[in-house]
Amino acid sequence: MISDYKIVLASASPRRMELLNQISLNPVIEPSTVVEIITTRVPEDAVIELSLQKAEDVAKHQQPGTVVIGADTVVAAEGKILGKPGSHEEAFKMIELFQGKTHQVFTGVTIILCGKNGSIVRSFAEQTDVHVYPMTLEEIRSYAEEEEPMDKAGAYAIQGRFAAFVKGIDGDYSNVVGLPVGRVYQELKQICEQEEKE
Amino acid sequence: MISDYKIVLASASPRRMELLNQISLNPVIEPSTVVEIITTRVPEDAVIELSLQKAEDVAKHQQPGTVVIGADTVVAAEGKILGKPGSHEEAFKMIELFQGKTHQVFTGVTIILCGKNGSIVRSFAEQTDVHVYPMTLEEIRSYAEEEEPMDKAGAYAIQGRFAAFVKGIDGDYSNVVGLPVGRVYQELKQICEQEEKE
Repeated sequence: MISDYKIVLASASPRRMELLNQISLNPVIEPSTVVEIITTRVPEDAVIELSLQKAEDVAKHQQPGTVVIGADTVVAAEGKILGKPGSHEEAFKMIELFQGKTHQVFTGVTIILCGKNGSIVRSFAEQTDVHVYPMTLEEIRSYAEEEEPMDKAGAYAIQGRFAAFVKGIDGDYSNVVGLPVGRVYQELKQICEQEEKE
Repeated sequence: MISDYKIVLASASPRRMELLNQISLNPVIEPSTVVEIITTRVPEDAVIELSLQKAEDVAKHQQPGTVVIGADTVVAAEGKILGKPGSHEEAFKMIELFQGKTHQVFTGVTIILCGKNGSIVRSFAEQTDVHVYPMTLEEIRSYAEEEEPMDKAGAYAIQGRFAAFVKGIDGDYSNVVGLPVGRVYQELKQICEQEEKE
């Protein structure tokens, strides 16, 4: 059972922590210090690569009986991968790309179970499509000038004021916030069962 | 502009209040005391009827320059309309209906703008499809025995622990929580523009 393991979140994101708390998981936070390297421009592959690097970096210091979760989120629009904006102007340009259209959010997750007889590693990427209402230039400008977009991949928080501009999504909502907790819980369940059988 | 109006929420739901706060709207709460009457079994029509009754009941006491928002949420699965569970056993039966399948959440909203030259009334229903992972009997039982499902239409909180069992949604997430804030914001914008033109 999941509750038999110590869970370690290889990420300093308070939003990922909150999402895990929401489903009654209470991980310890140990952010990875690895230098992140991407060898692909395909968003779903890039987020898996990064989540694996983070999880492996943290897993190597762990005792048996620990499960490490690494994650990385990017936004993709019109063939571009968008990370966090470097300035309010960059935030403006990102939101301008999204308004009136559909874009994709990808979160890559790697779960490493450190067992007595070696590790089990599982990686996956979850995609959510986000449909945004048309926005006026004034709405984009006023949103981009706030603090809310500044530390978010894609320059918006669906769990914040940006919800006013979201028409709907196809996929997991928590994936857009930063961690697909439904899929994470299902994979954790399977990986723990697999370890118990071995 | 929306900020020129006093906003009144005709609902005591703390979740609807939080959703409006999330998009920077700060309504006054005045729950309706109307006896709710449904004349249809079609979910989208029933929630509109109820939202209209609530909004009209509260709007009749208001001064010009006020916008009243009424809302009602139901869950529909296999042709049945599900409200709040009356017991943990009823919660168990509802969750059992959902597991491994897709069901629908409908929120009906009525917005009444009380203007100087009469009122503008707008009603709509928003639908979100929710896909739930297969659940074991033990998972259903353990969830149904908690307090979380007891005051929720459909006996679950997507914003709570039930997120572990949600595969994804098609539509607006906030609609499942209790108020489709994206659509509400868009309609408020239009209704205020309409009033300014008259």
